[in-house]
Amino acid sequence: MVIAKKWVLVREFVGKPKNGDFSLEEEILPDEVNDGEVLCEALYLSVDPYVRFLCNVMMKPGDTVVGEQIARVTTSKNLKYSVGDVIRLSSGWRSHTLVTDVSQIEAMPDLGDLPLSVVLGAAGVTGLTAFFGLEDKLQPLEGETLLVNSAAGAVGSVAGQIAKMKGCTVIGFAGTDDKVEWLKELGFDHAFNYKKVDVDDAVSMAAPNGVHCYFDNVGGYLSTQILPHMHRGGRVLIVGSIATYNDIGKSTGPYPFEDILKKCVNVNGFSIYDMYQKWRYGEVHLVKLLQQGKLRHRETITEGFELMPSAFIGLFEGTCTGKALVKA
Amino acid sequence: MVIAKKWVLVREFVGKPKNGDFSLEEEILPDEVNDGEVLCEALYLSVDPYVRFLCNVMMKPGDTVVGEQIARVTTSKNLKYSVGDVIRLSSGWRSHTLVTDVSQIEAMPDLGDLPLSVVLGAAGVTGLTAFFGLEDKLQPLEGETLLVNSAAGAVGSVAGQIAKMKGCTVIGFAGTDDKVEWLKELGFDHAFNYKKVDVDDAVSMAAPNGVHCYFDNVGGYLSTQILPHMHRGGRVLIVGSIATYNDIGKSTGPYPFEDILKKCVNVNGFSIYDMYQKWRYGEVHLVKLLQQGKLRHRETITEGFELMPSAFIGLFEGTCTGKALVKA
Repeated sequence: MVIAKKWVLVREFVGKPKNGDFSLEEEILPDEVNDGEVLCEALYLSVDPYVRFLCNVMMKPGDTVVGEQIARVTTSKNLKYSVGDVIRLSSGWRSHTLVTDVSQIEAMPDLGDLPLSVVLGAAGVTGLTAFFGLEDKLQPLEGETLLVNSAAGAVGSVAGQIAKMKGCTVIGFAGTDDKVEWLKELGFDHAFNYKKVDVDDAVSMAAPNGVHCYFDNVGGYLSTQILPHMHRGGRVLIVGSIATYNDIGKSTGPYPFEDILKKCVNVNGFSIYDMYQKWRYGEVHLVKLLQQGKLRHRETITEGFELMPSAFIGLFEGTCTGKALVKA
Repeated sequence: MVIAKKWVLVREFVGKPKNGDFSLEEEILPDEVNDGEVLCEALYLSVDPYVRFLCNVMMKPGDTVVGEQIARVTTSKNLKYSVGDVIRLSSGWRSHTLVTDVSQIEAMPDLGDLPLSVVLGAAGVTGLTAFFGLEDKLQPLEGETLLVNSAAGAVGSVAGQIAKMKGCTVIGFAGTDDKVEWLKELGFDHAFNYKKVDVDDAVSMAAPNGVHCYFDNVGGYLSTQILPHMHRGGRVLIVGSIATYNDIGKSTGPYPFEDILKKCVNVNGFSIYDMYQKWRYGEVHLVKLLQQGKLRHRETITEGFELMPSAFIGLFEGTCTGKALVKA
């Protein structure tokens, strides 16, 4: 008998998520599984802001919180998987998962010396968002200026580094001096703590000829400060909007529509889940860049499945650098 | 000796343009012209909101107000043009123009029975904005739902009719009941007076499956009400933003970034001046549609060159249906 734990949504979030919005529940899983099934235990769980964003869409109170994890097979009656195999799956915030339909298991890529956890971060969904956001959407050219915010985050840090590889001048905004320091280590041409600088002045200085590509993880007021600096015909990719996820009601700020019109800017909302069929292609590239040391990454790892909600809440407090994970 | 009149910008607009922002000045033009030159008198002058939008960019105090006109040649020492020829040119708000460089003259298309003035409206810049905004940018498909605002205006009325020809369900918003009535005559599937309806309810009713294409002339708060109704992957073309042109400072409203992200919407700012090389192609199509009676148009004509500022100010008071013109 396995006593599994899972985090369940108690109520829809109102404002910033709170510990009390989640409840830790137990469920008893059988020791034995049926033919074809697999039982596994979580090793690392991904902690993602999109859970806040998609709360009403993907989850209702009583549901297990959604999310990806890496797990180790503990029991198997499936020829494809043996006890000890490491797999990944989107089974949510669960300590143990009974997989009845193994088509939901994602194979692990060959990571070589890389830590397993990269498949939840720099070589996973967040890395792929950066990779395809640039490769397929923004398509920055050598010599162009790219601005990325939440730049020390799981998506932004990969996006900025790939833009550097493409020969762009890269400007990063982050929210602490330590993060800014890391961005400079990563080779960003300009890095600013948006809490300490005048954003308008900073962008004017760093992009005197305008911003060709704006990789936006943040939205809200910061975006309305950046849009007037776009180069004519510039491109904006919105992959997140964390500045406003926790707002109660719709928060307000300057309308951006005239700025989009004046510079004939192209703005796109982007979800990596729309290009699922290309993930493997991107993963191969990201793993290679990581193995070659060309792409660097950080992880903020919280130890203990019991701290999933705290780790999640930390995303909105700017306490993470790189990818946020929980080690079960 | 010809006493020409011209309207000069006295000061940059602050808020809504006022009569006092313009000054009527006289300049004396010679009776005789030099070899290669042409003298002409204005017949119709175009009155356009973009003059407000581009004030700081295109004009400074002391400049003649920019704009297009149709004129009749009164004196010519150019083999290409004879006295009595009708031409069009972008010489601004002038009653008479000495054209020293005739390459600035645009040839008139063969209009058949159509009134000359259509080349400033339905077959001119505003018609072309609608035509290419749909043909090259939004590319609405048969069966899709297209929403256009300022729908009884010079651009919107053409955009809505062309979308109908393409087999779209067309929703129009306008600001008076008379305009709404006209939109229904034009075959719009749904037409609303945005001042009298709940916009959210109206769009929910008219586009239960979402708006695939949003042709935006207005911006501001109205756009933030429409964006949540976009179909996933929908397209927005911003060709004007008249709701906020007269704002002092930047007016504020709900941030649209999360709506763009949630539905993976594509938003583009569009200027017809970026596709100047294709204008003749569009003009031929528009003239044909007008001649065949498939495209209908209205003009709001103010008589008298002295009333140019009043006609212009009227654009911001919703008093125009179709294209605003001044008959000199």
